[in-house]
Amino acid sequence: MEKYSESKLNRVKRGAKRATYDKETIFNIIDAGFLAHVGYVYDNYPISIPMAYAREDDKLYLHGSTGNRMLLAILERGSTSINITHLDGLVLARSGLHHSVNYRSVTLFGSLTKIDDNTKKEGILEKTINTMVPNRWKALRTITKQELDRTLIVEFTIENASAKIRAEGINDEPSDENLPIWAGIIPVKQIAEEPISDDKLTPDVVIPEHIMEYYQKNK
Amino acid sequence: MEKYSESKLNRVKRGAKRATYDKETIFNIIDAGFLAHVGYVYDNYPISIPMAYAREDDKLYLHGSTGNRMLLAILERGSTSINITHLDGLVLARSGLHHSVNYRSVTLFGSLTKIDDNTKKEGILEKTINTMVPNRWKALRTITKQELDRTLIVEFTIENASAKIRAEGINDEPSDENLPIWAGIIPVKQIAEEPISDDKLTPDVVIPEHIMEYYQKNK
Repeated sequence: MEKYSESKLNRVKRGAKRATYDKETIFNIIDAGFLAHVGYVYDNYPISIPMAYAREDDKLYLHGSTGNRMLLAILERGSTSINITHLDGLVLARSGLHHSVNYRSVTLFGSLTKIDDNTKKEGILEKTINTMVPNRWKALRTITKQELDRTLIVEFTIENASAKIRAEGINDEPSDENLPIWAGIIPVKQIAEEPISDDKLTPDVVIPEHIMEYYQKNK
Repeated sequence: MEKYSESKLNRVKRGAKRATYDKETIFNIIDAGFLAHVGYVYDNYPISIPMAYAREDDKLYLHGSTGNRMLLAILERGSTSINITHLDGLVLARSGLHHSVNYRSVTLFGSLTKIDDNTKKEGILEKTINTMVPNRWKALRTITKQELDRTLIVEFTIENASAKIRAEGINDEPSDENLPIWAGIIPVKQIAEEPISDDKLTPDVVIPEHIMEYYQKNK
């Protein structure tokens, strides 16, 4: 099983038993979402901004307008880190300090380059939209050269990465387990509600199959 | 209505029409969650890590063990930024570039100090647990002095902040609105599933009212 090598940078110090450097696990966590927290430094502050992404092998693609302050800043810097976290449950123990959450989280470290080729840019935008809702891109109006020209696409190559997963029950102090206090897990998840059609739709347009499939799978 | 002042640091450049510096709006977005992305710098990388928080006025409180690498690093630095984002919907337009998401997001800039007083630390942990699940703390085994001693609590005072909110429909190019392409919103939200009791519960313990209230409110 292919793994990212451990280094000072990505080694998980707290809760190391929950850490993994396995690529397949890391890619699965990335592929379970479409929004990442991307780090950058502005005026000496480390800031993180939520952005949509697409993954292709060990590369993540971010996009924005050609004037996007944050993308330009991370490009100039040449490297950054990205965090993607999915919350899976509340872990409610008998004592305060053993409260926790179940989650899947990756922290990725990588280098950044700009993508200039419009054919490649179009393929990346297709993948980004389809990461949000599968099969959406082919239902859309074709993207224009002008739209591609004013879109900045940044390729992030993962050089180091770690995943941290908590997917277990309550870890109370053994001496607390006989207390008459309820402990347990409340699973949480993100769901989709019924699609709301744009009120400007032309009269003959119905909710297409790819949208209903997304809704049925995520409701 | 009280506002954070605009500065180079927190001024929102992209989508400025969606930006606000209003304190009540910012506090409401903070109070709608319990997990934040906290920025720090490690080995020259801007990293963001999800952490639980509690808010009291213009202060956020983070906690971890006294050896927590990240909390110690941001304390030494003296300042950081925090992002809290709630995803509310997928915005599916007729063209790729007008795809977006509905969301509520705050970016907070502030200074950091350590809390040493155990009574204050206990109050902050109580608030943190109750931010996760209301009324949980009073149902728990009392926290011990040893537990308080080995808990590091960091107070983050908001000095600059901005909120960015998108809560609207489709903004397609007017020339695309007559196309026979479906456009619309898929609302998304985080829900709770049925509580799962710890299998080590003593036989007489039932799921308490504060847990069922949380479940009913969030299911």
